[in-house]
Amino acid sequence: MKDDLKSQINKFFYPKSVAILGASRSPAKFGNLFLRAFLTNEFPGNIYPINPKADEILGVEAHKNLIDIKDPIDLAIITTHPAENIKLVKDCVKKGIEAIIIFSAGYAEIGEAGREREKELLSIIKGKARVLGPNCVGIHSAPGRVSSFPATSFDLDAEVAIISQSGYLTSLLTRTLTLRGIPVTFGVSLGNSIDLNICDFLEYFKAENNTKYIGIYLEGVSQGQRFIKLCKEMKGKKQLIIWKSGRTNIGKKAISTHTASITGEDKIWNAIFNQYSIFRVNSAEEILNQVIALQFSETMKGPKVGILGSQGGLTVTTAENCEFYGIELAKLTDETKEKLRKAIPEFGTSVNNPVDISIAAAMNSKLYADAGKIILKDQNVDILLINGTWMIDSLFIKYLLSLRKENDKPIFLIEPSIPERLRSYKKLLNNKIGVSFTSFSFLRFLKSAIDSKIKI
Amino acid sequence: MKDDLKSQINKFFYPKSVAILGASRSPAKFGNLFLRAFLTNEFPGNIYPINPKADEILGVEAHKNLIDIKDPIDLAIITTHPAENIKLVKDCVKKGIEAIIIFSAGYAEIGEAGREREKELLSIIKGKARVLGPNCVGIHSAPGRVSSFPATSFDLDAEVAIISQSGYLTSLLTRTLTLRGIPVTFGVSLGNSIDLNICDFLEYFKAENNTKYIGIYLEGVSQGQRFIKLCKEMKGKKQLIIWKSGRTNIGKKAISTHTASITGEDKIWNAIFNQYSIFRVNSAEEILNQVIALQFSETMKGPKVGILGSQGGLTVTTAENCEFYGIELAKLTDETKEKLRKAIPEFGTSVNNPVDISIAAAMNSKLYADAGKIILKDQNVDILLINGTWMIDSLFIKYLLSLRKENDKPIFLIEPSIPERLRSYKKLLNNKIGVSFTSFSFLRFLKSAIDSKIKI
Repeated sequence: MKDDLKSQINKFFYPKSVAILGASRSPAKFGNLFLRAFLTNEFPGNIYPINPKADEILGVEAHKNLIDIKDPIDLAIITTHPAENIKLVKDCVKKGIEAIIIFSAGYAEIGEAGREREKELLSIIKGKARVLGPNCVGIHSAPGRVSSFPATSFDLDAEVAIISQSGYLTSLLTRTLTLRGIPVTFGVSLGNSIDLNICDFLEYFKAENNTKYIGIYLEGVSQGQRFIKLCKEMKGKKQLIIWKSGRTNIGKKAISTHTASITGEDKIWNAIFNQYSIFRVNSAEEILNQVIALQFSETMKGPKVGILGSQGGLTVTTAENCEFYGIELAKLTDETKEKLRKAIPEFGTSVNNPVDISIAAAMNSKLYADAGKIILKDQNVDILLINGTWMIDSLFIKYLLSLRKENDKPIFLIEPSIPERLRSYKKLLNNKIGVSFTSFSFLRFLKSAIDSKIKI
Repeated sequence: MKDDLKSQINKFFYPKSVAILGASRSPAKFGNLFLRAFLTNEFPGNIYPINPKADEILGVEAHKNLIDIKDPIDLAIITTHPAENIKLVKDCVKKGIEAIIIFSAGYAEIGEAGREREKELLSIIKGKARVLGPNCVGIHSAPGRVSSFPATSFDLDAEVAIISQSGYLTSLLTRTLTLRGIPVTFGVSLGNSIDLNICDFLEYFKAENNTKYIGIYLEGVSQGQRFIKLCKEMKGKKQLIIWKSGRTNIGKKAISTHTASITGEDKIWNAIFNQYSIFRVNSAEEILNQVIALQFSETMKGPKVGILGSQGGLTVTTAENCEFYGIELAKLTDETKEKLRKAIPEFGTSVNNPVDISIAAAMNSKLYADAGKIILKDQNVDILLINGTWMIDSLFIKYLLSLRKENDKPIFLIEPSIPERLRSYKKLLNNKIGVSFTSFSFLRFLKSAIDSKIKI
């Protein structure tokens, strides 16, 4: 085994072959689910299902045991009952596999017997292999085209990594962000972190070029000083967005039976987050909103917002909510106002910021493109916020995309009825137009993105 | 014209025939859009498109003018340029139409000339007809099977009315709630409210049996004393949920060019809302969340929550977020814990509240039904919160629905990846299982629903 962390973690993220120990013919077993994930995600390398009783599983040749396989294997996923894990980990080490993911629970989170199991595991792999887990659902790597999560996708423009002490949340965040048009480079389910822990992955991502934003669900850390040092080193280089649980006594108690983490005092966490400009959020959707706000405001030159809408109610409330969150509204130039007057209808409109092009835009969505172009050209406008319209259709999407070509000022669509319109909006996100799924609360994330990008 | 308000408003909500003045063959005109809305919503009465230049529009016989039509007409929608409206309103009155919706803008919100137009309109209709608008998009009535909003639906179990000073928000809220499984009885777009105003509709809904919850987007009211009196009379009988804009100077200024409303001091509004137990919210999605929390907690007998999940991360954070918002967790009886121990797997689980049935539930969603039944039977549990699972499928939905049959305790599903799974969740909502679309913030609305239903 190479002794640098990067090479070791690369075995997880770029395996050329994978063995699934405990692979099963039964669709009701996880050993079947993981194999299916590798197949449906079209893993380009060799897959070796291991099962003493099967010749073939899901159309792939199965093997009685690992040792008989002649080809080298980079990554093993162990999905068996914890009582069998020790033997299988020994097999992995004997076979020379340097990256092992252990799915099974039944370790420190169940008490003393589980802690003994962890110790034994560690003594077996020491210096020979690295372990992710146990009690974890594995990894996702877009550049390595490998994922143990079902129905995911690999996009090479991805800039977001997810690290989580909850397997479900790793998978949920990775898949949900990808589905909504925010591709994910790497997803890591840490589980109990008996070997590889959050600090190891932060160190890896610190030096990894594709990853800019790291969304983390965190219950606690074991290497506190190393964690703080990494936060310090990453400040201003990689943006951490952390959903930290264990704020309350109920939370701390529940965590002890989940990943057996030491949670720490919440005010100490807040001090760390403040010092190293880390965004603290409180839910999966807040991680999503914060990533969208950050990722699509990268080209921002200043903090001033122009608002464009076609319905009084929404333009009014978007302007008001900007004020509520401390987002500055741009003062449009007289030239801009004059141009707008010529481009938009006479009644039900306003050429002041917020600009209202009236309900006429529901029948003529080109008004969005016409007015949007004029507002984006105004030197006082740094960011354009657009409110959705009554009749969102492919033409509306086309006109929004045409605005993207004018310049590189950030553009966001603020639309409260999004879940019904997910497919259209994915196209916008893919073309670097931000879309908010929760219109009012989204502005809070936009404000923090503005503050972090523009040094005030 | 009958002189009681109920009969007058019934002409809008239960018309037997409707005339569309300014009906157009061009799909780019609102006179086409409104006609299409009546056709696609399958309005059961007669429709009379009025257009001096057309014999037929969208397959419906058109008429040169209103006066030549012999049959009686209950409702007119005027979609023409404001300059033509005065003549057409005169025609309506001459024809004996007692309910008129004026879509066109170009009134008080544009200044003095518009205010003169409003005065002239009022002098024409006085004692003869009631007007909704101008500057509004009309109405929706499920019991009357009539809607001027495109692509809506009529469900007789509906309990929610929407009143809004923004036409788009009326339509958006009515359609979005309906699409997500929360049907809407009535939707009213007030516009400039030169004649019928919010107080008239509140008075109507006060006496209307189907409507329990009234979601309102409000910029300001003209009859302040009457509004306060109505809030007082409705307290404890109908639940008002109000999104009030005009909190800030920017908002107040923007409203003046929108519906020309007097917005008032925000602290006075808060005092009114507090005194009459009105929920104040800040966005369309908050109206939706508040309605879901209230509507699906109707059978609540006490405030104590049991939590059921299959992923440590989510069960931990849901429990913690309950504590954050002040929602009380139930202490499960020893009998319940013993039954749970027998029903769920050994590893990765917890029989304390929050109950964690482990990731095994991803492969065996019947565990949700088994554990859910045990928890619901516990005398200490008043409300059941369920966290979503890794592999949500039709079986999971089936098992959740089976829980509904056990008793009438409120059940909510808390799931952050909902937009992708909208269709399944609609089925849950239709079967009186609440579903949250924004998991963390939803608990705030649940807390306020608990407090309002359970007198603490």
